[in-house]
Amino acid sequence: MTTNYAGLQSVIWNDDKLDLLDQRLLPEEIVYLPLTTSGDVWEAIRHLKVRGAPAIGISAAYGVVLGSRDELSVEAWLEQVNKQAEYLATSRPTAVNLFWALDRMKSAAARIANKDLSLEESKAALLTEAIAIQSEDEETNRLIGEHALSLFKDDMGVLTHCNAGGLATAKYGTALAPFYLALERGITLRVFADETRPVLQGARLTAFELQQAGVDVTLICDNMAGMVMSKGWIDAVIVGTDRVAENGDVANKIGTYSVAVLAKAHGIPFYVACPLSTIDLGTPTGAEIPIEERGAEEITEGFGKRTAPQGIKVYNPAFDVTPNEYVTAIITEKGIVEAPYNVNLRKLFE
Amino acid sequence: MTTNYAGLQSVIWNDDKLDLLDQRLLPEEIVYLPLTTSGDVWEAIRHLKVRGAPAIGISAAYGVVLGSRDELSVEAWLEQVNKQAEYLATSRPTAVNLFWALDRMKSAAARIANKDLSLEESKAALLTEAIAIQSEDEETNRLIGEHALSLFKDDMGVLTHCNAGGLATAKYGTALAPFYLALERGITLRVFADETRPVLQGARLTAFELQQAGVDVTLICDNMAGMVMSKGWIDAVIVGTDRVAENGDVANKIGTYSVAVLAKAHGIPFYVACPLSTIDLGTPTGAEIPIEERGAEEITEGFGKRTAPQGIKVYNPAFDVTPNEYVTAIITEKGIVEAPYNVNLRKLFE
Repeated sequence: MTTNYAGLQSVIWNDDKLDLLDQRLLPEEIVYLPLTTSGDVWEAIRHLKVRGAPAIGISAAYGVVLGSRDELSVEAWLEQVNKQAEYLATSRPTAVNLFWALDRMKSAAARIANKDLSLEESKAALLTEAIAIQSEDEETNRLIGEHALSLFKDDMGVLTHCNAGGLATAKYGTALAPFYLALERGITLRVFADETRPVLQGARLTAFELQQAGVDVTLICDNMAGMVMSKGWIDAVIVGTDRVAENGDVANKIGTYSVAVLAKAHGIPFYVACPLSTIDLGTPTGAEIPIEERGAEEITEGFGKRTAPQGIKVYNPAFDVTPNEYVTAIITEKGIVEAPYNVNLRKLFE
Repeated sequence: MTTNYAGLQSVIWNDDKLDLLDQRLLPEEIVYLPLTTSGDVWEAIRHLKVRGAPAIGISAAYGVVLGSRDELSVEAWLEQVNKQAEYLATSRPTAVNLFWALDRMKSAAARIANKDLSLEESKAALLTEAIAIQSEDEETNRLIGEHALSLFKDDMGVLTHCNAGGLATAKYGTALAPFYLALERGITLRVFADETRPVLQGARLTAFELQQAGVDVTLICDNMAGMVMSKGWIDAVIVGTDRVAENGDVANKIGTYSVAVLAKAHGIPFYVACPLSTIDLGTPTGAEIPIEERGAEEITEGFGKRTAPQGIKVYNPAFDVTPNEYVTAIITEKGIVEAPYNVNLRKLFE
């Protein structure tokens, strides 16, 4: 029997407003913010109430809809759409998905304005575009999940690191997508979630969203992954990624590389799940991917209490690069790719 | 030039009282508690103001001295010593070093009482025994440090996990001993300290005591160890241990096994430092070492704030076992032992 999984969605278009899950309050509180203006959406993106590149893009698209509801001529409406898109683009200046979604909304509005529709029809058509961005993201993730699930069997243990989940996307997420599809089909997977220091996305988000949906999930500290593997509890690792280089090197949340090395040492396959848009053929290898270093306070006083001495020297890289030799397969909406990645990733785009 | 390192000592006999560093307040506050009665010492051990097996044993030995200061006959004094030792043994019922130190104090008192000394002389002789327990521990650790330091060169990067340091012992610690000796001799080592989730002994204690002493120490999250190794920053790993089996399998704080696997994958030697008393020839392999599982709250709300969802399933083993194949050498006060451990560890005791 197939049932639609009942996990939380981060972005919900609700008749004429945007209901946005405030991710800053997770896992303590589940609060949906009713956003009715583009200013509300700008503020929500800026202040990290919504996180995850796809979820940000989708929210911004709805923000354009909310910001262009005045009674105007179609021509003036088009101008308003463009202004709102430019305004929303200032909410987080480095988010690629944000700009992509806003450009798509501007192009759609230009097309719509040329169609000789009424203002109401034009507005409805633009809302349809925002809904399409969201449903296409959901469909991409569902396809990633289908392909990933083909690699898993009932009762397998699967370890994940950080959060590449439904909260960051329209639905399903990338690395977490197979868990939700398994749930919909009555397939049991035992998921182990690394808490993912220093910001604890694994504890606060992955454990939370899988628990909400009813997936069997066990939270561990990052340093327990090796022991859990040695006990034979883990049959596969699956993670998301921020960027895949042309040669299949994978940048992802700090700690991913350690998990990949541990997986290889235990003979456990290490899978990376991502949409094609995350594969960057313009980056030859992982060495060209810049690694952001973040403030010491994330490690020394991350949760309201100081847990390290004053003035201690800290190294806090936000990401690491896993060389392609550790990557068993990369799972995309167009299928599963194995080495040699410098040949096979390119084929996805042909 | 050799100078004595100026790090904090956890247990200081100060004329006629015991000054005990309250380790519960570290790293935020450095407070020495003046303990004047055996009840003070009992309470300090029970409530974890002092931690680390050797430091507990030493404190208890001084506790016997503090508890047997009444004006009595030598015979009645001997009885009081035995009563106090039995009382202090109830402070933490599973601490092997505690019982060992108290037994030694009882034996010493029995010997002393047979020597036809005055009460004052007897009391002084018993204090000498407590001081000997402390200074022998310091000497053991210094020897461990000497042997360990012979493996290191100026400007090496060395990673450690958890806290096997001076705070847990009379002085120097075990795994941290070579860092203090290097400091005394003007040899520069760059130490990387894993924070060691969930209880953060690396952040709270190792980073703290090394910083206090003036060692070059950098704090990282456990999941950064692999990346730091891949950057070429680590030339060796050194850790302490709670128990070494006859075959050289090593039980230590959770996460040690992951570090050992990562070290091997990067061609980095993995050293274990411990006194002979930690090597248990009666335990054939690591499989026979029981692994304590601790409460979920250490992971879900360890930072003074809940950081994981209510009701989440957690796996929280306090220790793991590193198989002997990952152990490059075991460093004791009697020298450095390499594989085959089932042959070579036994030789230490001949």
